[in-house]
Order: sequence, then structure tokens, then C-alpha cells
Amino acid sequence: MPHVSIDTIKAQIASVLTAWGMPADQVTTTAELMVEADARGIDSHGIGMLPQYHERRKEGKIIVPGDIRVVKDLPAMTFIDAGHALGHVSAKMAMQSAITKAQDMGVAIGVVRESNHFGAAGVYSTMALEQGMIGIAMTGTSQRSIVPPRAKEPMYSTNPIAMAAPSKRNPAFSLDMATSTVAVGKLNIYRRAGKPMPVGWALKEDGLPETDAEAAFYSTPKRMTPLGGTQDGGSHKGYGLAIMVDILCSVLTGSYFGGRDLHTGETGDFINVGSFFLAIDPVFFRGEPGAFEADMDALIDQMHGVSPLDPAQPVLVPGEPEEAARAIRLRDGVPMTDTLFNEVKRVAEESGTPFLFG
Amino acid sequence: MPHVSIDTIKAQIASVLTAWGMPADQVTTTAELMVEADARGIDSHGIGMLPQYHERRKEGKIIVPGDIRVVKDLPAMTFIDAGHALGHVSAKMAMQSAITKAQDMGVAIGVVRESNHFGAAGVYSTMALEQGMIGIAMTGTSQRSIVPPRAKEPMYSTNPIAMAAPSKRNPAFSLDMATSTVAVGKLNIYRRAGKPMPVGWALKEDGLPETDAEAAFYSTPKRMTPLGGTQDGGSHKGYGLAIMVDILCSVLTGSYFGGRDLHTGETGDFINVGSFFLAIDPVFFRGEPGAFEADMDALIDQMHGVSPLDPAQPVLVPGEPEEAARAIRLRDGVPMTDTLFNEVKRVAEESGTPFLFG
Repeated sequence: MPHVSIDTIKAQIASVLTAWGMPADQVTTTAELMVEADARGIDSHGIGMLPQYHERRKEGKIIVPGDIRVVKDLPAMTFIDAGHALGHVSAKMAMQSAITKAQDMGVAIGVVRESNHFGAAGVYSTMALEQGMIGIAMTGTSQRSIVPPRAKEPMYSTNPIAMAAPSKRNPAFSLDMATSTVAVGKLNIYRRAGKPMPVGWALKEDGLPETDAEAAFYSTPKRMTPLGGTQDGGSHKGYGLAIMVDILCSVLTGSYFGGRDLHTGETGDFINVGSFFLAIDPVFFRGEPGAFEADMDALIDQMHGVSPLDPAQPVLVPGEPEEAARAIRLRDGVPMTDTLFNEVKRVAEESGTPFLFG
Repeated sequence: MPHVSIDTIKAQIASVLTAWGMPADQVTTTAELMVEADARGIDSHGIGMLPQYHERRKEGKIIVPGDIRVVKDLPAMTFIDAGHALGHVSAKMAMQSAITKAQDMGVAIGVVRESNHFGAAGVYSTMALEQGMIGIAMTGTSQRSIVPPRAKEPMYSTNPIAMAAPSKRNPAFSLDMATSTVAVGKLNIYRRAGKPMPVGWALKEDGLPETDAEAAFYSTPKRMTPLGGTQDGGSHKGYGLAIMVDILCSVLTGSYFGGRDLHTGETGDFINVGSFFLAIDPVFFRGEPGAFEADMDALIDQMHGVSPLDPAQPVLVPGEPEEAARAIRLRDGVPMTDTLFNEVKRVAEESGTPFLFG
């Protein structure tokens, strides 16, 4: 599989966004946040999203440039209307305003409405680390792919939760997880490998487990499970967490739920994604600067110190797999499938800008 | 199984706490919050905890009355030191101060350090409902019973997350979940029934699944799994969520992690539990009063409207099982096992106060 450097991916994204008419500062922000997902190994949320963004822009669901504006600004909260722009710029604004306000208040929230896909949640939560803060990021989504326990049909999507907390000696804690058992990308990996999937990842129309990855991946709609996988496995908990995310992101901001109007259940002219960001400054709680970070290091050390079942597989802390991927990909570039290579080529051509991977 | 009325349980708890020397107002608060867990069907977190509180008080780990005091008080945050008192009173103070401050700020946090077990997390998150707010409650714990992915030994406990959000027509959304696959009580149910447990609830010492409920329940230490159950099932996500809870509750407040000092890994004279509470006032975000509640009703209606696999088992929203249990138990009382009956009798006798269930 050919590898493409982080810089080339960023330049390609930037050239396409510029061709779409996005202002230069927004291009820089969006390209940096998108390629950061690729760097961390989150292939589903970086340049891999560009073809979908392209389609949605053509459909008029993503407006470039959108009219992004602050609709409410109080000491501990900021409410941003993204004007149906692509989600990265407004998400960064909301997270940054939460961080700035938490410097005065100890805690602050930023929320966004009338937005679109914002990439990987973890690129926002980790923004808090530079200021020594805890960051939390969540988002609603635009599709129905996860089936609630007992239900026949999917009602919401992967509703991610991301949280980051600073340490000093160790890489920072950084959780970035879908509240579903697995991401769609994992179905695709099993499909390509021709392997049966574990029970508990996806369902058939009759509610029985689907272990055929080909069938699960191409099912319309997709029928994936909440974290927990089965009722015995606690899927009501993954479902509850997902609804928690949608309450904070979608209901709190007056946005759509799973891409649909809450009252009519219908899709509309726009995606109307809502997102939620929270920053907490530990210095307000611990007093002494560095005390929180020292305890985070101790927590991470404790986890690294647990006896592993297999000495070759030490116990990890959330964020370490992404940190490891980042080191490799900054050096070697990002592996690019033929499919994505060709899709990006088509997007560049249709956008009237050079294709840079060739 | 004999049933004991909610009022009798409350009176029994109150008489024991009074005998321990707890001030009258704290007795009322603690008894009400404990019996509320019983009313909701959360048997593990109501009067069922009284014998353990009794033991811990005798050991000097719970101080009655403890010196509960506010150590930091800012516009959007309150930090309470519980002085090693039983956890309910300080937890209620922290949640209520978060609610009061969120009325001015839109969002506020309350945290507690040097505390003990506070009962069920959901009795605090639902306090926000009366003020039309979203409430979140989490707590660290004092034991090690959950094994991180790849590890041999348990490192933390059930680290619960509770969240409540108000509606108008429907019962409120109320999630109250351990971040483990199941609670200890579920092992006990399978043990008593002599049934093998599903794979993914508990582990043997060698890391393989333990399906013998007797062995899992009596194992020292317990070896239960994070939500997700297995690595294929996404147990790294349940693990990540649990560490998120411990960061917000334990690291943010300078408390113990799984009952142990973060730096030495040792237990100490006290349990040093930390807890975290958050309140958000939706009116700050939605403007129009009632808009949030109307959307919550629409969300709940959508869930109730999904076609169920089995028409006899409609799709539920978090909080409905507890709501149903509450209606039955307020009418019929709480079923009481012989074991608990006798344990409470012994606590009453040893505390020098009448036994009221006889």
C-alpha cells in the first residue's frame, strides 16, 4: 500500500478546501485538524472523510463558507451557530472558548449547533492539554446505524466521547471512543479479510447476531450494536451513554437527533449536528500547579506496572495506541488504500485543483 | 421473601445513624438518599450497604460525625472536604451547590474529597431534575475489582456514571450505570440460581473467562471485566470510561484510586473517596423555558416508537426500569433476603437501637 506524507495530505486537503471557497484561516484550521486524525491512526476521520464532505457540499448540506457566529457568550459558556459550515472551525472555536473561560472560572462549556461532521472528537479534547486542562468533546451524528437494545431498527450513530487529561512524564491520557461496540471501519477490515466477525458487533434484521462482515458492512441501514454488544453484555449501558451524548450535544443545542428532526423524525435541508465541549482547569481544584499532572503520572505508572497476562502485551493507557501511530506516521506517512487514493483524486479533479498524491 | 416498607427501612436506617451519633439533619438526608436507592430497585446501594458502613465505622474509616466543610467556593465550582464522614451528606451538598451555581452560570461543578461510599450515583444526578437541569454524578471507589484489558489483576472498581435530564410528559431520562460489564450483585444472582454466567462478565486468574458464578463471586480479589467484556467486545472502552471517572473524581480532588494512594499504591487509615458532580441549566442554552423538556419528550417518544423485536418487550429509555421498580416498592415494600434481614438485625443490636423489621 502506498504511503502519503502528513504534509502532502495536509496540502491536498487545503487545496481542495481552498477550491471550495473556504477562507484561508479556516482552511488552515480544518486541514490541520483533519490530518491530525490521520496522524493518530484514526483513518475513518481524517482525509477519508473528504469524499463525503465533497458530496455533502454538492448537495448543499455543507455551506462553504458558512456564517459561523457566536450566539451566546457568558462567563462559563459559549454557544456557537456554525451556519451549516463544515464542523472543524466552529468546534475548535467552542473548545478554545471553553479553555479560555475555564482559566477564569475553573470550568466552562462550549456548544455548537447547525454544524456538520467535525472529524475526530479527540483532536478537540486534546487541545486542553496545552493549557494544562482536562478537555471533553462529544458530538451528535447525522446517521442511524446503532440499534437500541430490544429494537429492530437503528436510531442513532456512533456518538463519540473524548476526554484528555495532562500528565508530565508520560504521554497524556486521551480517550477517544465511539459508544458503539466497534466503528464501521472494523466491519470493513473483517470484510476485506473475509473473516467472520465476533458475535455482538452487528445484527441481522431479525435481531440475531450478524457475523458475516460483508453483509453487515453493506447492510442498509447498518445495524450495529451499542457498547456491550448484547443484552447480557450490558448493551443497555452503551445505549445509555450514547443517549447521554445526544442529550448534551443535540437536545441541549436544539439540533437534530441521528440526522432527523426530533419532533417529525424527518431529515431536512441540513444535517444540523450539535456538539459539546467542556474544559476544567485542575489548578482551581488542586491549588498547587503540577499536582494534578504528578498524580496523572502516578496513575499511568500504576497501570503500566500491572502484571500483564502476556509480557509481550503490556497494559495500555488510553491515548497510547494513537501516540504510537503518530510517531510512525509522522516518519513513514499514512498508508493509503487504492479506493481512497482514487476517491481523493476524483474530489481534486471535480474541485478543479491539482491531485498531489500522484 | 418478606417485604419491608420504604418508611420502615428509612426509620431503621435513621435509628442506626442516630445511634452512631450522626446529627439529626444529616440522619434525615442520609436515610432519605439510602432508601431512595432501595425504592429504585438498586438493592446493592441502599440499606444493603448499612452492614458495610457499620464495619467501616468500627474500623475508624468512617467518622461520625465527620467535619464536612467547604474548602473552595467560586462562582462555578464548589470543593468540599467530607472529613471522612459517610458520603451522602457531602455528595448532596456538592450536587446542590452545583445546581445553585448553574442557575447563575449555566454550568457548575461540585467535587468532594476525603469521603466514603455515597450510595447510588443516580440519587444525586436526579436532584437536578427539580430545577429543570441536567445533572451528572460520578464517584471513585474503594476497592479493586475490575481487571484492565491485558492485565492479570484488578486495579479499580465499578466507577459509576449517572446522568439525568428533565422532560415533561415522560418520566425523566436517568442513566445510572457501572462502567463494568455487570455489578457484583449480578454474579450473586447467578450464584444463587446455580446457573453458569455468560462469557465476558468475570475472569479467572489466568485471564480466561470465568463462567462459574460461585467461583467469581467468592474470588479474592474479584476479577470482573470493564464494559465491553472482552477485547473483541471493546473492553478497552469500558476501561477508558472508568479511568475517565477516576480522573474527574479522584485525580482532580487529590483522592485515592481504587482505595489506594496513587503514589505508594498502599491503602491508608481512610478510604479517601473522591466524587464529581456537574449541573447544566438548559435554559441558558435554549432560551425559551420548556424547549429542552419538549425536545426530551420527543426523543423519548422516538425511542418508544421504534419497532421492538418482541412486541411484549418495548424499547426502554434509561430510568424506566427504576421508575417501574419505584412504583411497585412504594406500594409493596422492598423484598428482603434472610441474609440482609439478619445483618441489619445485628447492626441494630450492636448499635444499641431497636430492630424494626421484626
